[in-house]
Amino acid sequence: MGFNSNDARFMARAIQLARKGWFTTRSNPRVGCVLVKTINNELQIIGEGWHQKPGLAHAEVNAINAAQANGHDTSGATAYVTLEPCSHVGKTPPCAQGLIDAGVSKVICAMTDPNPQVSGRGIDMLRESEVLVECGLMEQEALDLNAGFVKRMTTGLPRVTAKAAISLDGRTAMASGESQWITGPEARADVQRLRAQSGAVITGSGTVMFDDPSMNVRDEAIIPDPYFEQPVRVVVDSKHQVNPSAKIFKGQGQCWLVSGTKRESDSFSHNVSLQNLEACDSGYVNLERLLRRLAEDGVNDVLIEAGSELLGAFLIKGLVDELQVFMAPKLLGNTAKAMAKLPLDSMSQAINLELRDVRQIGKDLKLTYNRVD
Amino acid sequence: MGFNSNDARFMARAIQLARKGWFTTRSNPRVGCVLVKTINNELQIIGEGWHQKPGLAHAEVNAINAAQANGHDTSGATAYVTLEPCSHVGKTPPCAQGLIDAGVSKVICAMTDPNPQVSGRGIDMLRESEVLVECGLMEQEALDLNAGFVKRMTTGLPRVTAKAAISLDGRTAMASGESQWITGPEARADVQRLRAQSGAVITGSGTVMFDDPSMNVRDEAIIPDPYFEQPVRVVVDSKHQVNPSAKIFKGQGQCWLVSGTKRESDSFSHNVSLQNLEACDSGYVNLERLLRRLAEDGVNDVLIEAGSELLGAFLIKGLVDELQVFMAPKLLGNTAKAMAKLPLDSMSQAINLELRDVRQIGKDLKLTYNRVD
Repeated sequence: MGFNSNDARFMARAIQLARKGWFTTRSNPRVGCVLVKTINNELQIIGEGWHQKPGLAHAEVNAINAAQANGHDTSGATAYVTLEPCSHVGKTPPCAQGLIDAGVSKVICAMTDPNPQVSGRGIDMLRESEVLVECGLMEQEALDLNAGFVKRMTTGLPRVTAKAAISLDGRTAMASGESQWITGPEARADVQRLRAQSGAVITGSGTVMFDDPSMNVRDEAIIPDPYFEQPVRVVVDSKHQVNPSAKIFKGQGQCWLVSGTKRESDSFSHNVSLQNLEACDSGYVNLERLLRRLAEDGVNDVLIEAGSELLGAFLIKGLVDELQVFMAPKLLGNTAKAMAKLPLDSMSQAINLELRDVRQIGKDLKLTYNRVD
Repeated sequence: MGFNSNDARFMARAIQLARKGWFTTRSNPRVGCVLVKTINNELQIIGEGWHQKPGLAHAEVNAINAAQANGHDTSGATAYVTLEPCSHVGKTPPCAQGLIDAGVSKVICAMTDPNPQVSGRGIDMLRESEVLVECGLMEQEALDLNAGFVKRMTTGLPRVTAKAAISLDGRTAMASGESQWITGPEARADVQRLRAQSGAVITGSGTVMFDDPSMNVRDEAIIPDPYFEQPVRVVVDSKHQVNPSAKIFKGQGQCWLVSGTKRESDSFSHNVSLQNLEACDSGYVNLERLLRRLAEDGVNDVLIEAGSELLGAFLIKGLVDELQVFMAPKLLGNTAKAMAKLPLDSMSQAINLELRDVRQIGKDLKLTYNRVD
């Protein structure tokens, strides 16, 4: 096995194509595919495809169709795919068989299927039909395309990103609750993209009652995409406090209203699904169970946009994979509201993070941290 | 007037030389000087000098002496100086006269003297002796060499930098007071350099009583310099609470113990100067008066290393020019101690800052903010 610079070039293009599905593949992985053939002694891309939305064709089939629509013969071609082609019949036929039927002679994939149940089967199916298969080119980039999908497939939990907008002194609101706006319009636009790439956005009853946010995606560069769907808006409301007229329950998209005990009132609108999850001893919703339920429902990526209590609860239980902090260049003072409620007594209990990225967004800083296990 | 690329090259060298006095010029400005002459049809540096310490020769004289020591004739040379040569007799004779006596035919200076009382007089003295003078080359770089000196000369106040070591959620210590160490060794080494470039380091009685810091410079790259002196350690102790045995009163260097009312006990060691400054109505030390007193004593740059109360008091009074925050990638939680006590009720009262610099120092971030007036 050995990859050359042409291989890298075509795989980079396949990864670029996969990104076109960033906001729409949702429960499915983001996948791109490039078909390459030597024509007149020159390597040429004869077909490109990417996966757009669950239920629609996979990247490989789109690339084969594109090649054939342009009058190209796919036999003898090499396929560059960002993920091992599937071997099973789902909503669409197996892609490995599609590549075999198209006469493809070689498949280079960036990574194997992360689902341990099926990993390697697509490769086996191809090899059994005498197709050359090589794997591992630009694997990290391919993993980064689908961090949530990979986590769900390997652990049964979605990838959890928590977002916080704070002042330099770590505050999210004044004591009065006044909080609009700590960060600037550029940071808020970035949060729109964070929401749009998530299958679910979780918030708490306090935020719903005090801030009454819509928590939907309004970004005008994303909304017009016919394949885009609003993430599920999830409200954790252990004590049955939220009002059915709250803005978060309005507009397009599904909502989950989650509590640890059965809710009597059902005056919520039809898009609100009442989720009665087992509670912890404290009577609060079991948050890991909630995440597992979301993963079972096909949610790869969860965004937490919550107040200090719920954010603190997710953090202290080690359920947050990535923390994205938008930090405004201002001080709100010691009576302002804390970013996260964490019952820590000593430095040894501090929650340690790893800084992954720093960038300036308008006048604010965007700081990305990973959990340290 | 017009500067060419050779002028920029020699002035850049003069600025580089001035920086050699970064930790030692103290009440004096950092100044560098380069003497250039055409020899064998080629521009050559014939002498370099910089100011090292109050009482020692100024940059211009050092450059002239260096040139002559190397057998060069300084007549007809061009002098590049980062600051207008002085015209008055202080601890040393006026440099403008020195340049005239050396036969220099042209002087290019980066900036005029910031002291409105004498600004332009050195230039006048040179011009009266038929020396060509041009000013303003790399002025911003020259101003940055001496931000503290310039502020003191123009306002009678030192330049104030406040330093804080915080967690991502804006905390400086656990509720118990435990705080060692929030940031890593690289950040702490950087604080050593911040201290070393300051004429005074201010802290409060709370920090002295709870943390008992030495607050001296221990950096082994700085300490061996025979011209280096410890900054004055200033303890603001309005309520006469600190103990004479505290570490901050030990070791080399002077200390100021500041209160708003007369202190009865004088059991402090001989290096501790008891400063009885007028108090505010609240009984606390008038901080602006303290800064003014330090400026009168020749302090250009003050570093504040204080707890939330004193830091908050400096911030709320608008006395902090620059805030340097070392931010560790960890969360200490909502019961941990706040960075700054600020009695703010609404977002409109928030203290707004301007982000000037971000860099990674070990695992921590160093964030530099300026005050927004």
